[in-house]
Amino acid sequence: MSEKPKILNRKIVAQSSLFRVESMNLEFSNGVTRQYERLMRGSGSNGAVLIVPMIDEHTVLLIREYSAGIERYELGLAKGKIDDGENALQAANRELKEEVGYGAHKIKQISSFSIAPSYMEHMTEIILAQDLYPEKLPGDEPEELEVVPWKLDNLTELVSSGQCTEARSIAALYIVRDYLLKN
Amino acid sequence: MSEKPKILNRKIVAQSSLFRVESMNLEFSNGVTRQYERLMRGSGSNGAVLIVPMIDEHTVLLIREYSAGIERYELGLAKGKIDDGENALQAANRELKEEVGYGAHKIKQISSFSIAPSYMEHMTEIILAQDLYPEKLPGDEPEELEVVPWKLDNLTELVSSGQCTEARSIAALYIVRDYLLKN
Repeated sequence: MSEKPKILNRKIVAQSSLFRVESMNLEFSNGVTRQYERLMRGSGSNGAVLIVPMIDEHTVLLIREYSAGIERYELGLAKGKIDDGENALQAANRELKEEVGYGAHKIKQISSFSIAPSYMEHMTEIILAQDLYPEKLPGDEPEELEVVPWKLDNLTELVSSGQCTEARSIAALYIVRDYLLKN
Repeated sequence: MSEKPKILNRKIVAQSSLFRVESMNLEFSNGVTRQYERLMRGSGSNGAVLIVPMIDEHTVLLIREYSAGIERYELGLAKGKIDDGENALQAANRELKEEVGYGAHKIKQISSFSIAPSYMEHMTEIILAQDLYPEKLPGDEPEELEVVPWKLDNLTELVSSGQCTEARSIAALYIVRDYLLKN
């Protein structure tokens, strides 16, 4: 593996409420220089969590939610930002209560994903939630979310149905399926 | 499932060489209105491909590449943009030759992923490449990429090693592992 490129300079070149774009000039260890643009997390962001809530040892609870990025309803895992003063596990349990209507007695981080590492700095913590109990907290969703139980041995069907396209949800579901088989 | 929200208005609120940010006002079927920001593909973009190249029926070829977004070297699948005049399969075969040094006699789209559907419109076509033969095309990479063979029955080790964090690569590898078991 090569030595990391040197960052010659960096500056913010575009900004909105949610996004900041940074331009970086890099010098690779072979002397080649390149300019890159990457998307930064919003200022003050603490990162994000994706939750895999198991209602029994074979069944995960998915949600169906409108996804403004691709302008359609998607089936996927609950997720959200880590608020100030929370750690990832606390954020996951809060989002689980807001979006799915359950809390978890047993909650554990099992992985950490990048989204598009070549041009985004964002990372998402993957949280397995088990031993669930009903508890609903009011969330900030514009409408009630539909909760859809799905068997982990039907992941191929979930993906091929075209209802669940998000790489983070798909990767997390496969990892949890393997994890539960081994533990 | 609810009826899709109405888009009341939309406008570009930030722009750089690579990114455009759109602000949208939506009215949900229950009458609630919300403002969303989402990241648009660059103008003239044809989308992107992620390639799963199998050098034999058990072994995938990964590449190790510097990822400017997270400022470190990552192990993952070859990927790239679809150029003007190419379809997804042609783009995948070209990127495979540029980044991995192989062409594929057998090449097939097996899935399509969103990256962050709540705030990005980007989709990635997942391409399985088999029956490989050596062929190197010059690419636009700033340095030579390291090619790393990896056994598909060691995916848990790949993820837990922390060397491969990208959700798209992880999801594609699990889907291909299942697909090859069934086909």
